[in-house]
Amino acid sequence: MPRIDLGAQGFIYPMPMTLIGADLDSGPNFMPVAWVNRVQPNPPRIATGMGKAHATNAGIREHGQFSVNLPSVDMVAVTDWCGLVSANRGAEKAAAFDVVRGTLEHAPMIAECPLSLECRIHEIIDLGSHELFIADIVATWTEERYLDDAGRPDIEKMRPFTLTMPDNRYWAVGEQVGGAWSTGRSFEPPGGR
Amino acid sequence: MPRIDLGAQGFIYPMPMTLIGADLDSGPNFMPVAWVNRVQPNPPRIATGMGKAHATNAGIREHGQFSVNLPSVDMVAVTDWCGLVSANRGAEKAAAFDVVRGTLEHAPMIAECPLSLECRIHEIIDLGSHELFIADIVATWTEERYLDDAGRPDIEKMRPFTLTMPDNRYWAVGEQVGGAWSTGRSFEPPGGR
Repeated sequence: MPRIDLGAQGFIYPMPMTLIGADLDSGPNFMPVAWVNRVQPNPPRIATGMGKAHATNAGIREHGQFSVNLPSVDMVAVTDWCGLVSANRGAEKAAAFDVVRGTLEHAPMIAECPLSLECRIHEIIDLGSHELFIADIVATWTEERYLDDAGRPDIEKMRPFTLTMPDNRYWAVGEQVGGAWSTGRSFEPPGGR
Repeated sequence: MPRIDLGAQGFIYPMPMTLIGADLDSGPNFMPVAWVNRVQPNPPRIATGMGKAHATNAGIREHGQFSVNLPSVDMVAVTDWCGLVSANRGAEKAAAFDVVRGTLEHAPMIAECPLSLECRIHEIIDLGSHELFIADIVATWTEERYLDDAGRPDIEKMRPFTLTMPDNRYWAVGEQVGGAWSTGRSFEPPGGR
């Protein structure tokens, strides 16, 4: 079938939904962010693109520290609410959560989230309207009940959710469809093995 | 319940699964990449962290162009196979696909993928073992059959899949659990409205 070009506003499908935590002058604050991912194995690093005008950005720039919290599907409404109100206009979003601290001084985390990463800024790249925070992961906080038998976080127990844009919908995670560095062994390559 | 620290090797759950296409001296090549996401609305930009030693990285550095292709769940085996073999060791991965071109000279795309982004390098950041490719989206290729009534890509028709690490499993997308900038309107904030 013919392919069509929708233009430059393409997205990745789907994007992981997180709440990024930072300390502002007014206290801890949390902002929904789906534009975040790992970018390096060692030292373990993530990157996230966030609009410069956000109160959260100012907090991250000031302290060089933040958290990435993964909410469960039970937290869709409160997560989305955090994106409808703004600390710049006086919203006290931290009051909606049990805020906990780990090893960093300025990486407030959400106890209700099944998994939280504490992060320290490595480098900030100016993109224009947004800045890219490249950060080292310092700690990964979870609870025993979210782990599998091998001690790894189990997505079926954590039940995170994802976002699609520009249709702006949230999605649960579905069934397992394969194993990485595994399922491909059964693929018959062109020209044979 | 008590929170435990799993250390610095934390991940984001789940990560979108893509095949990144680039032109090598030997021809077009495709590599599975889950560490990619949008980072800015305008100009529309993505970022992806990829190990410098990969043949694909060399192709991107040389031409400053690449594609991001989203395979469907029907393509799990071939996608995973692309990560088990290497162009550096002679694998001809492009032979497994119908390779198509768009507006850029060096952004080979996979016709079988429901959606492909053509990208042009904006900036390359050296992270250590990996490099971060920050790129402008130039075009978004899909087919009519993957669009919703409003002309937007429909994830239920495209059926992409995601990756979790370090357990290395692939996951389909589940049911819709809410609307962004919408579901939060029903949330009762702490202290009332």
